[in-house]
Amino acid sequence: MRQRDPHPVAGQRPGTVRPGGRTARTRRSVLQAALTELVEVGYSSTGVEKIAIRAGVAPSTIYRRWGSLEGVVADAAQSVMEENLSVPDTGTLEGDLSTLTRAIVELFNTPPYRAWMDVLIGSALGHGPARDTFASSTLRTRAEIGAVIVERAVKRGEVPQDTDAAEVIRQAAAPLYYRLYISCEPVGEADTVRAAEVAATAARQGLLRKAV
Amino acid sequence: MRQRDPHPVAGQRPGTVRPGGRTARTRRSVLQAALTELVEVGYSSTGVEKIAIRAGVAPSTIYRRWGSLEGVVADAAQSVMEENLSVPDTGTLEGDLSTLTRAIVELFNTPPYRAWMDVLIGSALGHGPARDTFASSTLRTRAEIGAVIVERAVKRGEVPQDTDAAEVIRQAAAPLYYRLYISCEPVGEADTVRAAEVAATAARQGLLRKAV
Repeated sequence: MRQRDPHPVAGQRPGTVRPGGRTARTRRSVLQAALTELVEVGYSSTGVEKIAIRAGVAPSTIYRRWGSLEGVVADAAQSVMEENLSVPDTGTLEGDLSTLTRAIVELFNTPPYRAWMDVLIGSALGHGPARDTFASSTLRTRAEIGAVIVERAVKRGEVPQDTDAAEVIRQAAAPLYYRLYISCEPVGEADTVRAAEVAATAARQGLLRKAV
Repeated sequence: MRQRDPHPVAGQRPGTVRPGGRTARTRRSVLQAALTELVEVGYSSTGVEKIAIRAGVAPSTIYRRWGSLEGVVADAAQSVMEENLSVPDTGTLEGDLSTLTRAIVELFNTPPYRAWMDVLIGSALGHGPARDTFASSTLRTRAEIGAVIVERAVKRGEVPQDTDAAEVIRQAAAPLYYRLYISCEPVGEADTVRAAEVAATAARQGLLRKAV
């Protein structure tokens, strides 16, 4: 999935402020600096001051906008997802999930993303705020994509109305992350197709309804 | 699943040497020392010498038996799995997988195991031998459990003959690990049942056959 969808996740979220111009450039350079710094020195040695120097801004700019190091890291994780995962629209839930699982795997096969995610997931292994911010930022992106594709599947009559969109995305993504981070096995085309197929089948059969 | 199955995984594996007596006691104390050391100082500061001191054995004993630090770590991971995951036999694939997913979650809810797995998974994030040894040791246990319960399911006619046992276990376990280590969400009873249900359904429908 080399070509980028014209409607990235961020554009789907009403009320999100995405200012252009200088503010957007500052955000981009700070997040880029944060990701570079994270990969070079690791989470435990990263600090707001070092990110500020690398980005060419005052530390106060970072504190004012993101509140803390954790805030910058969470936003950096979110930005990587947003810029690389878009909302598919293939006409079927299984097709949409296949496109999504392929995009996730492609993201991980692109060396800088893999290194960033390794650091972010590694830092998320601790039990501090970094863990929570990382987890919630990745979850938010998934939930937003899931909401759109599952809503369409419900309208098409493919899945029950009370299907849990977040669970559909979790089911499709989990086997890929399991291979990447738990069993450390390769992830191939067959795995992305299978993950999508299993999740779509489970959703169609009503196994992924919201808990009552 | 507080009570332990009388047939732990190790016992299911023909040809595995589990000597009793002094050798077994040495193994147990070295692995216990390795796990304690890992949690206290982290993987990057752990060394064979420190583990040897803690276990009260000569470093040469460890090198002779495990070859390297990675060998000890892999065996420690394997031993935690072996001692805590047994082969269920409930009469159905879905029941067996439910028992297994519950046992995995219970393992993670037991504080020392969670801390050990955090360290082992964290060390597996690197790209060195620790990653490979950790991954292969956890995989081996799963593959052994999977082989037994899927073979029974095939005999009962529940699933196609060419069902991929390792993939069945991966499907059942992946959503739990995803919650524990990627999205950092709680894992409840409903999640363990759902993971088993989705994996069993996918297997029954022939979605988890071996690749040709």
